[in-house]
Amino acid sequence: MDDELRKRGTSMVAEAASRMSSDLSVAGLPASLKATRQGAVGTLWLARSEKRNALDDRTILGIESYFTSIADDIKVVVLAAEGADFSAGLDLGEIKERGIGEGIEHSRLWHRAFERIQFGKVPVVAVMQGAVIGGGLELAAAAHVRVAERSAYYALPEASRGIFVGGGGSVRLPRLIGVARVMDMILTGRTYAAEEGQTIGLSTYLVDGGEGFATGLELAQRIASNVPLTNFAAIHMLPRIAEGDPASGFATEALIAAIAQADDEAKARLNDFLEKRGPKVKRV
Amino acid sequence: MDDELRKRGTSMVAEAASRMSSDLSVAGLPASLKATRQGAVGTLWLARSEKRNALDDRTILGIESYFTSIADDIKVVVLAAEGADFSAGLDLGEIKERGIGEGIEHSRLWHRAFERIQFGKVPVVAVMQGAVIGGGLELAAAAHVRVAERSAYYALPEASRGIFVGGGGSVRLPRLIGVARVMDMILTGRTYAAEEGQTIGLSTYLVDGGEGFATGLELAQRIASNVPLTNFAAIHMLPRIAEGDPASGFATEALIAAIAQADDEAKARLNDFLEKRGPKVKRV
Repeated sequence: MDDELRKRGTSMVAEAASRMSSDLSVAGLPASLKATRQGAVGTLWLARSEKRNALDDRTILGIESYFTSIADDIKVVVLAAEGADFSAGLDLGEIKERGIGEGIEHSRLWHRAFERIQFGKVPVVAVMQGAVIGGGLELAAAAHVRVAERSAYYALPEASRGIFVGGGGSVRLPRLIGVARVMDMILTGRTYAAEEGQTIGLSTYLVDGGEGFATGLELAQRIASNVPLTNFAAIHMLPRIAEGDPASGFATEALIAAIAQADDEAKARLNDFLEKRGPKVKRV
Repeated sequence: MDDELRKRGTSMVAEAASRMSSDLSVAGLPASLKATRQGAVGTLWLARSEKRNALDDRTILGIESYFTSIADDIKVVVLAAEGADFSAGLDLGEIKERGIGEGIEHSRLWHRAFERIQFGKVPVVAVMQGAVIGGGLELAAAAHVRVAERSAYYALPEASRGIFVGGGGSVRLPRLIGVARVMDMILTGRTYAAEEGQTIGLSTYLVDGGEGFATGLELAQRIASNVPLTNFAAIHMLPRIAEGDPASGFATEALIAAIAQADDEAKARLNDFLEKRGPKVKRV
């Protein structure tokens, strides 16, 4: 599929999706964001495609607000973007006049907002197409599962602009692709294509143009069907166990494993499985 | 290209480059090392190809000395090797009569020298061809960006010789390719080819035979054009942030991001970018 077709495919889906009726229970979002929902899956759309979904302060505050006030019956969120690009990153127009103190506050705003994604109430599936650059890549890195369309490309052009990552990229990206690859991206400003990104770990799903949102939604629905306690363990306990020392990790794992299996819902599902009613792992 | 041609290509470039005029400001290097420079990019050549650039004590001391006394107007260093091989590793001839105390001192000498590469004044780009073995791989792992020619191959044959990595490999290599792969390399003595090395992360650039030095030089020139503060952040702050606990990492990232964006040079480049004069991220 050539570039034009791919772009058109991508925007067709994004536009169709963006015509879905807004989730009216979500109040106070800026114009650069839009919320929709399908059953237990909410979607937060970056909706500033005329600026390649560049992330200004209002958008970041809107992201924080959305993830802080997710309705109880939303079990998973898809983070998607209208238009041809996921996000071209930090809106550089806002940085011009900023001093050191304001720069720290700004970085801390991003950290706070993205922390609500990574360690919030529900798993988050990011769907990426086109530019996933700088702050856009930092945003995607805060999600729990990443789907890339073949049009996606990744870069950290901060160094050539004289700045440094400030949205958690230096913390989260080395955990995805290793510190050496992140250092190379920053020093040389290189761009990774979607296929390479999939190989090194920037995405774990790679799909054709226009299929990203449908794939993200399907994965989200599957995640929503899990026992909530298991989803909690996966997004809150697993990364802490993986970060910490192994001895504490084993102890914590014993606790969370025991708590999970003692849950009534878990018992019911184990019974289903033993009586051949549950889902099986499919051979690939 | 067949092996012979590839080897010849490699040595042609290395020989041409080694005929470049020496950087006379660099004093006191042993015969096994050679320094050249092109503008703001210095190159340190391993120049003992008749011994496959095996690393003896004099060479290690020379590497330490070179990286300790880099001229202020050198902004990036390329670490390259004459001949068909990057380095066959530790010069085993020297190890024969060493007791435990001397063995510790020897390992600490390597650590000290390679620390000057990894946490020195400037980013370092290693260009690897042919054998990148044992201590040679440990040396390359201390650089910030690694370019491999297709002739490169990697191994840690220490175990079969009854010894263990002593040049920082047990610290740096697991951070590049994961501890399981390093353990496998040590236990089984397996060899990774250049393509595999690229996939698992031993290199982040893979080029044809004879193109390694030109690629390394081009990357180095690109890195040299970054704002120095961003390069400092990439080589000194990023790895510390990536190693530490995430909470400290976010705080440190906020500081360095704010300091970088408040820099005059950064402001000038942001202005260029906003007025469409700056470099753009190229879609791949």
